[in-house]
Amino acid sequence: MARPVCLFTGQWADLPIETMAAKAKELGYDGLELACWGDHFDVQRAMNEDDYCAKHWDLLNNAGIACFAISAHLVGQAVCDRIDERHQQILPESVWGDGEPEGVRQRAAQEMKDTARAARRFFDAAPQGVQDVLASTGKTVVNGFTGSSIWHANYGFPPFTPGMIDAGFADFARRWKPILDVFEQEDVYFALEVHPTEIAFDVLSTRRALEALEHHPRFGFNFDPSHLGYQGVDYIQFLREFGARVHNVPGGVFGGHAPFGTDGRYWEFCSVGRGKVDFEGIVRQLNHHAYQGPLTVEWEDPGMHREHGARESAAYCRRLDFEVSPTAFDAAFSE
Amino acid sequence: MARPVCLFTGQWADLPIETMAAKAKELGYDGLELACWGDHFDVQRAMNEDDYCAKHWDLLNNAGIACFAISAHLVGQAVCDRIDERHQQILPESVWGDGEPEGVRQRAAQEMKDTARAARRFFDAAPQGVQDVLASTGKTVVNGFTGSSIWHANYGFPPFTPGMIDAGFADFARRWKPILDVFEQEDVYFALEVHPTEIAFDVLSTRRALEALEHHPRFGFNFDPSHLGYQGVDYIQFLREFGARVHNVPGGVFGGHAPFGTDGRYWEFCSVGRGKVDFEGIVRQLNHHAYQGPLTVEWEDPGMHREHGARESAAYCRRLDFEVSPTAFDAAFSE
Amino acid sequence: MARPVCLFTGQWADLPIETMAAKAKELGYDGLELACWGDHFDVQRAMNEDDYCAKHWDLLNNAGIACFAISAHLVGQAVCDRIDERHQQILPESVWGDGEPEGVRQRAAQEMKDTARAARRFFDAAPQGVQDVLASTGKTVVNGFTGSSIWHANYGFPPFTPGMIDAGFADFARRWKPILDVFEQEDVYFALEVHPTEIAFDVLSTRRALEALEHHPRFGFNFDPSHLGYQGVDYIQFLREFGARVHNVPGGVFGGHAPFGTDGRYWEFCSVGRGKVDFEGIVRQLNHHAYQGPLTVEWEDPGMHREHGARESAAYCRRLDFEVSPTAFDAAFSE
Amino acid sequence: MARPVCLFTGQWADLPIETMAAKAKELGYDGLELACWGDHFDVQRAMNEDDYCAKHWDLLNNAGIACFAISAHLVGQAVCDRIDERHQQILPESVWGDGEPEGVRQRAAQEMKDTARAARRFFDAAPQGVQDVLASTGKTVVNGFTGSSIWHANYGFPPFTPGMIDAGFADFARRWKPILDVFEQEDVYFALEVHPTEIAFDVLSTRRALEALEHHPRFGFNFDPSHLGYQGVDYIQFLREFGARVHNVPGGVFGGHAPFGTDGRYWEFCSVGRGKVDFEGIVRQLNHHAYQGPLTVEWEDPGMHREHGARESAAYCRRLDFEVSPTAFDAAFSE
Amino acid sequence: MARPVCLFTGQWADLPIETMAAKAKELGYDGLELACWGDHFDVQRAMNEDDYCAKHWDLLNNAGIACFAISAHLVGQAVCDRIDERHQQILPESVWGDGEPEGVRQRAAQEMKDTARAARRFFDAAPQGVQDVLASTGKTVVNGFTGSSIWHANYGFPPFTPGMIDAGFADFARRWKPILDVFEQEDVYFALEVHPTEIAFDVLSTRRALEALEHHPRFGFNFDPSHLGYQGVDYIQFLREFGARVHNVPGGVFGGHAPFGTDGRYWEFCSVGRGKVDFEGIVRQLNHHAYQGPLTVEWEDPGMHREHGARESAAYCRRLDFEVSPTAFDAAFSE
Amino acid sequence: MARPVCLFTGQWADLPIETMAAKAKELGYDGLELACWGDHFDVQRAMNEDDYCAKHWDLLNNAGIACFAISAHLVGQAVCDRIDERHQQILPESVWGDGEPEGVRQRAAQEMKDTARAARRFFDAAPQGVQDVLASTGKTVVNGFTGSSIWHANYGFPPFTPGMIDAGFADFARRWKPILDVFEQEDVYFALEVHPTEIAFDVLSTRRALEALEHHPRFGFNFDPSHLGYQGVDYIQFLREFGARVHNVPGGVFGGHAPFGTDGRYWEFCSVGRGKVDFEGIVRQLNHHAYQGPLTVEWEDPGMHREHGARESAAYCRRLDFEVSPTAFDAAFSE
Repeated sequence: MARPVCLFTGQWADLPIETMAAKAKELGYDGLELACWGDHFDVQRAMNEDDYCAKHWDLLNNAGIACFAISAHLVGQAVCDRIDERHQQILPESVWGDGEPEGVRQRAAQEMKDTARAARRFFDAAPQGVQDVLASTGKTVVNGFTGSSIWHANYGFPPFTPGMIDAGFADFARRWKPILDVFEQEDVYFALEVHPTEIAFDVLSTRRALEALEHHPRFGFNFDPSHLGYQGVDYIQFLREFGARVHNVPGGVFGGHAPFGTDGRYWEFCSVGRGKVDFEGIVRQLNHHAYQGPLTVEWEDPGMHREHGARESAAYCRRLDFEVSPTAFDAAFSE
Repeated sequence: MARPVCLFTGQWADLPIETMAAKAKELGYDGLELACWGDHFDVQRAMNEDDYCAKHWDLLNNAGIACFAISAHLVGQAVCDRIDERHQQILPESVWGDGEPEGVRQRAAQEMKDTARAARRFFDAAPQGVQDVLASTGKTVVNGFTGSSIWHANYGFPPFTPGMIDAGFADFARRWKPILDVFEQEDVYFALEVHPTEIAFDVLSTRRALEALEHHPRFGFNFDPSHLGYQGVDYIQFLREFGARVHNVPGGVFGGHAPFGTDGRYWEFCSVGRGKVDFEGIVRQLNHHAYQGPLTVEWEDPGMHREHGARESAAYCRRLDFEVSPTAFDAAFSE
Repeated sequence: MARPVCLFTGQWADLPIETMAAKAKELGYDGLELACWGDHFDVQRAMNEDDYCAKHWDLLNNAGIACFAISAHLVGQAVCDRIDERHQQILPESVWGDGEPEGVRQRAAQEMKDTARAARRFFDAAPQGVQDVLASTGKTVVNGFTGSSIWHANYGFPPFTPGMIDAGFADFARRWKPILDVFEQEDVYFALEVHPTEIAFDVLSTRRALEALEHHPRFGFNFDPSHLGYQGVDYIQFLREFGARVHNVPGGVFGGHAPFGTDGRYWEFCSVGRGKVDFEGIVRQLNHHAYQGPLTVEWEDPGMHREHGARESAAYCRRLDFEVSPTAFDAAFSE
Repeated sequence: MARPVCLFTGQWADLPIETMAAKAKELGYDGLELACWGDHFDVQRAMNEDDYCAKHWDLLNNAGIACFAISAHLVGQAVCDRIDERHQQILPESVWGDGEPEGVRQRAAQEMKDTARAARRFFDAAPQGVQDVLASTGKTVVNGFTGSSIWHANYGFPPFTPGMIDAGFADFARRWKPILDVFEQEDVYFALEVHPTEIAFDVLSTRRALEALEHHPRFGFNFDPSHLGYQGVDYIQFLREFGARVHNVPGGVFGGHAPFGTDGRYWEFCSVGRGKVDFEGIVRQLNHHAYQGPLTVEWEDPGMHREHGARESAAYCRRLDFEVSPTAFDAAFSE
Repeated sequence: MARPVCLFTGQWADLPIETMAAKAKELGYDGLELACWGDHFDVQRAMNEDDYCAKHWDLLNNAGIACFAISAHLVGQAVCDRIDERHQQILPESVWGDGEPEGVRQRAAQEMKDTARAARRFFDAAPQGVQDVLASTGKTVVNGFTGSSIWHANYGFPPFTPGMIDAGFADFARRWKPILDVFEQEDVYFALEVHPTEIAFDVLSTRRALEALEHHPRFGFNFDPSHLGYQGVDYIQFLREFGARVHNVPGGVFGGHAPFGTDGRYWEFCSVGRGKVDFEGIVRQLNHHAYQGPLTVEWEDPGMHREHGARESAAYCRRLDFEVSPTAFDAAFSE
Repeated sequence: MARPVCLFTGQWADLPIETMAAKAKELGYDGLELACWGDHFDVQRAMNEDDYCAKHWDLLNNAGIACFAISAHLVGQAVCDRIDERHQQILPESVWGDGEPEGVRQRAAQEMKDTARAARRFFDAAPQGVQDVLASTGKTVVNGFTGSSIWHANYGFPPFTPGMIDAGFADFARRWKPILDVFEQEDVYFALEVHPTEIAFDVLSTRRALEALEHHPRFGFNFDPSHLGYQGVDYIQFLREFGARVHNVPGGVFGGHAPFGTDGRYWEFCSVGRGKVDFEGIVRQLNHHAYQGPLTVEWEDPGMHREHGARESAAYCRRLDFEVSPTAFDAAFSE
């Protein structure tokens, strides 16, 4: 079976989940990667209401659309971050609370543990077709961010104080190991989107993050090459090195103090296949790792209407996901 | 409404206008940019015959095709040029007359004034749908060339004599200001196709042309990147600087003493989207300038049958003209 | 009429010819280039059985598919090669015999002569539509390899002994001239696929091969740019120099001691239009040489299922084969 | 007279100024750009001790070396920054004080005002040769950083809150205008090194910084292309736009959480002329702006001994600083 | 003996020949390529004064400098050109006369014949050292331009009239064949600098010029790659095709209506080795053609003082002119 | 101490060792890498004559030149190769014998064991200065080739038979393990130059060779990037992966059936620093591995006289070998 083509709902959280599900179907998708915000997926309701998961699946089934992973970027970001006014905007009230930084971080960590539990409940309630796909990959996945206590020191001026970077990775390990242990208990995998502002944003920092966690078996990656390319990271090489831990594959660019979409920026995110990322090379490399999970589209093109972009992206992903050859082409020479 | 996709008729003047209109419709176009030669648009008849404009619109309407601009490249070229045998081929007899250079230039200038008047009469007679489009851009446009009295000195050997280049721009201003004043009276814009052999062919010469005209409000540009790319001009930067005066957008390469299409030439014009011009980047830049005029195809690919090329170009332009995003992609994070 | 789009059957010899013919039709092809192995085309049966050719055409006609050339790469390879265990795999038993190298080479040469004769018989029996296409190109073609007695010395270490390379070309000429004389008698052309491991693999060796054969009129080329690109050969320039002798045009990468398809190889063959070869440039160059033969697809992409690849390749070739312009685009300016 | 070639002493503050002055002379320099840390230039002593400036010049004169600018990067950084443990390392105790952030920022602002006053006293005491150079450029310059209250939000995730970026520039203007007014009183120019972690780090942020300051006449730039190139900024274009405000020209790359000099980093600073920055293009562009100030070397190559690098950099700058042509090359054709 | 390194005096004609000769020696040159304007070389005096040539050699000998070729670009340009005010500036009064175009062209042709005769007289009077160098190349050379009656039609708009280009080459042949016949009588070669504004400016036009002259044995080339590179001409390939007719090798870019040296131009001439021309590749290719003539520097860098440029260019040419290997590097393996 | 700059004598074996030693000194070298052919280093004499080594050192000492490694490429090549007439040219008579292939291979293996023993004797007799350098690297090194029984199958057509490549590596291991065991006994390292025609020629084949030898501790590499670059191998990445086993660093290109130096070849070896290999990047990478062995020049530029090339290469290597920084450049900020 071909890989399912999915749409991440994070940039569509203004739409109710019913509308979103119908639209995604119409735009050509097999599934949604549900964001844990808006009403797309509610962690606490999934934990506390007995029929939430079943009703959510009914709603998706009615739209003819599946779901193979959920995403918790916003809450995950708060686990390690230096908290400020930007976080208030993106966190649920229950996590933000009074905004005192350490309290926010601890509540975010607690919410991440609940997210693993909610994911377990949700996917246990999934219809057989979804269960079959998950069985073929052997993994239930929550995607997300980790935040970082040391990102503000990224450029290296003023110079790092001795031990400062080590302390940042230690803080990350201290906060995330207990979360990942819950993921272990629930048989769920956490997939970090390697990304600026996270503890891991390039090859060296990804290696250090793995070492800090002593290679925790539940820690893997949501491979989004768009965040690697403009940093000069060789994303194919990244896949060679870390491919065995890639649990999800979405398909994005560098900021500054101008909003995305401003004229004159050096880099801009653009629709899948319209920029410079070699997606065909990525798919061929994923084939070498026998990756069978979803190909997921994340809309981040400030110059194109999101529905136009989502439709062409679905078609593009399907064209990319060609079938692999079961035989060598020169095998027939000895017939 | 999306931008109308149009076909410039200059390279099809061997076909009668009825045939041309039907063919363009069949090839996938919304409109024609009518050349003021062949029988596609006759300036003098539009001026002198009461029913010419109405009948011309009937003809277009019957073919189901619109028109949003006319083009006067050939006569415009003669206004400033050093006249020789090449001009006789491309000018109407009434302008060529006895071929005495100054007389030719003055009759060409007179014809350009009449072209503005004819454009006014023609578009005043346009059906409501065309009127609505013109209203949305706020402009009635005649595209064309200006010619140049100093192009022959382009390479700079023998060296320019002192004041020679200044005199060339002064000649241009002296001849074109009265023409543009008629455009002003008629509420029509002249859009120069910046192009080798014209007074403006790159960024520096475009700046000088604007200065020579004291930034006449009726002088703007028909932006054809194909004539800029092979000269090494950064056409995106051109658009940043002069975008507010771009009134029309067509989509072509460098000469020599070999006919276009000869094997072994360094550069060749080719069909829209098959060469190296970054049309998607241009459209994204036009979006920053809120350009809402037509996207017009000019067939100049000597290696491809013109009907094949015109059909694929229409489809290509439509794919390019995707809808712009009304919101920021990260706006939904705070839902 | 447009050039026929064909599929080379060499990599599909595991399928019986009936299956192959039906599949190619379904995948979008006009014709097959039949490999002289498997049961796709049997040289000896064509020579010895009176109804073989007629029945073979019936089989193709029933599938709605044509054939404009046959291919004898495997046997041709053995004519000049240093024979070893690899050849046993790819040769018919009757040519391999006891495997004694010189005997193998001589039997391979004999089989190549028979291939010319069989091609003559086969195409003389072709239906009218095929005859018409062959008449328009004026050529009946057998594609193939030549082998080489000096390929093992290719890199130049240990250094060539004096005269060694000259001797290799002389050996080639001695063995192939008698074969080509039979091609002459039968009015058939031999088209070498210039390729590593053959006597001609780049521009300099192609010139030497032609000189060695004293420019035999029956010796030409099956132009496959994929074998030139990764060697750094300017394949467009190759076509300028040797275009008049190009009799067939297929569309492939570099070896090593890892099987094709291994992760980490520098070069990999890939499907037509997905790699770096400028096929549009090739077609425009072929237009300058008025080439009217088939465009043939050879499947050699180890990362894509062959049916997927064959289908998209057929469509790609058809898009490439646009009609040429019969007039200059600026001719209409003087209407 | 040719531009003086100078060495910035910031990376050599472990050496006493006497040693540094002698070494720079021996390495081939005309002058030092004195860092306001270590004992290279002491702002408070220059303000408070009557003979400090004269003695400092004696020391430099004895070594045969000049000085045309001083640099206050470290204290300047603290004016707008979010203060943390990194700043303690780089600030004088008197500025750091108890480390309470707002207090640190205000003391840093005060120190910058004193730096302008100290620069005035110091250069008023300069020997005639230095005075002559300063007269030719018309400017006394203090180079430095500004810090930024919004750098930590650079990448744009979590998204900026509404008004957050505007507030950052307003904070910058509020803190720096009073400082620049002191520069005005003292007839000294402040030259910001546009650089990640500062309020201005690319073209768009440089424009905004100028607007925030209402184009304060004492605010200009210390043009270091090494901090622009790896961000994708067109540094030649930067010079075209802001060249008239460039007061100093030094010659450096991107951080991460690995110390500079770690194997496997994408970017590394390297010695002048050994990296990818087009310094000759920069010098030719500076010629168009008639820049006559120093060319200053800043050693930041973690893979090369600093004395080796400083020596070759001095020689490299001198080769770059060729004399400009006073006539057109084609002027002699009419002799 | 190594190739002599020479300086073309055309851009230094404001200096008297005595000054020029001394300066070139001091700047590091072996010889001058004397321009036939200023007082550097006077064709008519060489023809008419018995001791002019001897005295001129005395002057050069006294400065310790040689001469291996003379240059007649300015007069040559007038032979085919459309004459206008620019030519008055660059022609001797005797050739300009009353400025009537056809008269100018005929007097220029006459002067070119005299130039061949003067070259003969001048080099017959040369000292033995110069005679030896000339003997080794077998050629006495006059470099120059031809002009062109069709350059103004270069871009191809307005379109060429039928036969117009043919007529231009015919005019060239009609005017230059009688001149070249005088070169033949005098045993002198004419070397055209292939260059925009001349009859030959790229590969195709060079081929046509040779055909128009029926490959006149006295017509060859002064190979200046700087005029080919910015046109996209593969100058190494040019050398492969025309190398046998290259009689002189100088080392220069595209005009427009801005003087050379204006900020913002796309292309600028620059000093030998500082631009993008691959001079080492050229010298290695000249070695394949056994070229033994001079390497001559033509100063055309508007951003660098000519004496600075001339000195570094002399040194650069000498470094390029390394000795060729007389043996294969792998020959010693069998010792 | 800086790395010694050495010259490999293999391409100079036509010169007696006395001449060679004096010339290398004069050309600017610190040492020779002695070829085991010509009279440069005689393995059998070193084994069998008591005073050979001492006398050889006297000869080198008299010339003021050292030696830090010897090279046995020619005999090493014969250990695994398919033997033919090319080997006769390059082998000593005692190894060639009657030319029967298996006998040649076995005698070559024997000679390689003797080479390890001879190297031991030779370097044990070295003067103190040489001993000190060897002590600092901890290694005595013999460079060389291994040959390969499967190179002729490199391109992959005819296809490999099953097991054929495995058998080639097994043959390599079977022949070389006993040789490397002698290297172990003698405390000498063998450094293979990874190179086409050898068992290891790219990254994948280097990994396989190491695996075949079970990572024998005496097997390492003579890192010559010139043989990697034109194959598309990322030589910096090669160094990252295999750097710990790099025992020697020389500085070379692709063959074909044309002798090196033929006009029109795609690739040509050229002098160090004149081609496209990033030698500075290599030296910076070697610094990360703390490589302290020699930098050795191998002359293989067919277009340049070898003495000219050797002299400039020595100077180039010395410029490259700059001293590494002992401190971080930002360490001085906290002074």
